[in-house]
Amino acid sequence: MKLQVKTIQEFKKSMRYEKVMQRSGFGEGNVLSTVQSIMDDVRDRGDVAIDEYAEMFDGVRVTNLLVSTQAIQDAYTKVDQSIIEALQTAAQNITAVHKAQLPDNDPATVVMPGVEVWRKYIAIETVGLYVPGGRAVYPSSVLMTAIPAKLAGCKRVVITTPPQPDGTIAPALLVAADIAGIEEIYTVGGAQAIAALVYGTKSIPKVSKIFGPGNSYVATAKLLAYSTGDVAIDSPAGPSEVLVIADDTASAEYIAADIMCDTEHGDDSAGIVITTSKELAQEVLQEIKKTYTQFPTADRIKKSLENYGAIVVVDTIEQAVQLANEYAAEHTLVQVRNATVIAKKIVNAGSVFIGNYSCKAAGDYATGSNHVLPTGGAAKMFSALSVLDFMKLIEYQLVSRDGLKELRPTIETLATVEQLPAHAYSSAVRFNK
Amino acid sequence: MKLQVKTIQEFKKSMRYEKVMQRSGFGEGNVLSTVQSIMDDVRDRGDVAIDEYAEMFDGVRVTNLLVSTQAIQDAYTKVDQSIIEALQTAAQNITAVHKAQLPDNDPATVVMPGVEVWRKYIAIETVGLYVPGGRAVYPSSVLMTAIPAKLAGCKRVVITTPPQPDGTIAPALLVAADIAGIEEIYTVGGAQAIAALVYGTKSIPKVSKIFGPGNSYVATAKLLAYSTGDVAIDSPAGPSEVLVIADDTASAEYIAADIMCDTEHGDDSAGIVITTSKELAQEVLQEIKKTYTQFPTADRIKKSLENYGAIVVVDTIEQAVQLANEYAAEHTLVQVRNATVIAKKIVNAGSVFIGNYSCKAAGDYATGSNHVLPTGGAAKMFSALSVLDFMKLIEYQLVSRDGLKELRPTIETLATVEQLPAHAYSSAVRFNK
Repeated sequence: MKLQVKTIQEFKKSMRYEKVMQRSGFGEGNVLSTVQSIMDDVRDRGDVAIDEYAEMFDGVRVTNLLVSTQAIQDAYTKVDQSIIEALQTAAQNITAVHKAQLPDNDPATVVMPGVEVWRKYIAIETVGLYVPGGRAVYPSSVLMTAIPAKLAGCKRVVITTPPQPDGTIAPALLVAADIAGIEEIYTVGGAQAIAALVYGTKSIPKVSKIFGPGNSYVATAKLLAYSTGDVAIDSPAGPSEVLVIADDTASAEYIAADIMCDTEHGDDSAGIVITTSKELAQEVLQEIKKTYTQFPTADRIKKSLENYGAIVVVDTIEQAVQLANEYAAEHTLVQVRNATVIAKKIVNAGSVFIGNYSCKAAGDYATGSNHVLPTGGAAKMFSALSVLDFMKLIEYQLVSRDGLKELRPTIETLATVEQLPAHAYSSAVRFNK
Repeated sequence: MKLQVKTIQEFKKSMRYEKVMQRSGFGEGNVLSTVQSIMDDVRDRGDVAIDEYAEMFDGVRVTNLLVSTQAIQDAYTKVDQSIIEALQTAAQNITAVHKAQLPDNDPATVVMPGVEVWRKYIAIETVGLYVPGGRAVYPSSVLMTAIPAKLAGCKRVVITTPPQPDGTIAPALLVAADIAGIEEIYTVGGAQAIAALVYGTKSIPKVSKIFGPGNSYVATAKLLAYSTGDVAIDSPAGPSEVLVIADDTASAEYIAADIMCDTEHGDDSAGIVITTSKELAQEVLQEIKKTYTQFPTADRIKKSLENYGAIVVVDTIEQAVQLANEYAAEHTLVQVRNATVIAKKIVNAGSVFIGNYSCKAAGDYATGSNHVLPTGGAAKMFSALSVLDFMKLIEYQLVSRDGLKELRPTIETLATVEQLPAHAYSSAVRFNK
């Protein structure tokens, strides 16, 4: 594996610096016109178009888009009991963490006597969760979107997911959906699934917001629908990434494991180590080189690290924190003395893992934190998925006659400046008599 | 003016029903390729490209993109004292309301002994506010974006706004920006302004999130930047709209005023009255017809109402509420008996105005509520602009050795199901010794 330890000065001067800081992006692909025509077609022809695309892209004919209750019950018999239990434990922890996120409404502000303003959180009524299919299945991701949706109080939560070659859905996904309390699962994937959720078909309901990752067709379809104002979508999500800040108290073995854990996701994942210890840096590199070949995912780890990996030696922890904030990683692991104190200095990250035992995989599967996180530097402005993403805020205002009287000069002066005379009139008319 | 009173049954069957419910949309326009080339050009050539586009589109050469402190101070001498005072009062009220929005962090969740998860709100470091220019200026909109940005704690808040024909910025905008505490204002508009904020130039900083409405070039540039993951953007915003729910206690004069107030914004605004009173419906129609011609904005009111207006008579208040929730108006005015009780049944709206004296113009300018609101039905899934839009949440997790031991079966089982062996290894390796 071509990966070297570099000092921060060397790293910043190196040819790779920009590429590593940039990451691989969202890999748009040039699918815009194809996606547009799929979406138009589903809007116009509904389920008929869906069936045709399923045959074209997935090579199957799905007789009933809605997965039957029987199929969901049968799924439990097709997976190991240990998997059911693991999903149940994960669901329990995710529920506990996300329940704490349920927001209180702000207190009303009495702006002046007779002028009161407040807001209220209300669940988005209908949401769609896209669950990728394909060779590997990710039941944990079902829990991460479905549980906050249900906790937020969304009335209708539907899942769409592409069929396997035999036309069915992987039982682990069905079990996860059932554990999360989802009853409506549709066997449809790709841009056609997004189109169905945007426009609605005879079988599939129109939703107000769409969540979940997918290939470039799915991502482009979501963006197209967002751009026309038809739906809201979750934050853009790209390849996975981990950044570890370490000092000489950290374990090279653990860090190597966390780096491999993240970079096995795909060919374009990223793994960054920033450490004050030259020795640790070398040990991590050796440990990765020694161990990675044992994994069936070794090829992905190698490619990811050669493209987007870096092991950087800094002079001070402050330098490490600064680089970490600049990078704004999806997962930032803090394995240093006084880890809790240093963690407080991280201002750009999706999720911060504090101490040597807070490994990334724990957050992915078991602590109950959400693993749908901003990537590619988006942690500078986006948050981890939470119940708030399944809600919206409505503003309220209650103005009395006396209150409006006080506000009149402000309203009428500003309306005049902005050349909106009927605005001024609408306040004045209330004092005509 | 061609506008008629219809019963809900007639309305739902009418040719206009779909058009009225749909509204005019975001009026994309076919500017994608132009915008893309402007953005690429600004990314590659920076300020030089900006200067050229200013000359091309705005017909002026701006010598210094950053507005000088002197120009801001001078602005105060160029506007009436009454305008300064109105802006100060509005700013004061907006500050009071938005301070109440500052979020508390959730309490940490102890998922099990040794496993703790929590989140923290952190301000987005650098944000850009786009302020439209042109014939009319909207200083109130400067306050609506700038004040929450400053309250959230964003370290750098910059404004970009197009030059007037003489190359300067309207003094009322500069005064509003100064009152809101903004020091960095750049004289640049259009897609080139968005490109500058996305990529940064020598003069203008790169930002993480862009707010503010604009023409189709600006809106398309924001979407393009969002789709590549370079920045976050605020919710899409289209033409203004108001919906009034009224019973026989309401005033036709006030309702007509509120409807004209909203529809004077442009040719494609929307005004909807839903009432249980046939008499009131007719009175509102007559009142509008009688009064609208007095306004210089009469032509816009007429076009908006002929295209997107409706006066609908319903049998019950429940029917009115249902239609209002289906429409999901930017502004929903509730002028009925027990208005506060009925207002609670509104689940889709940007801002709800309760009672006969809570006129839309009050919310636009003076109550302190935010007037940047979701339009076109987007209130089903988007919220009014608030301090939360200028912040993000970081997730934290702290797992002890004992905690991780408890989580191991869940982590390792799910990692195996998902075919991610290094994930399982990263937990197991911590118990090797």
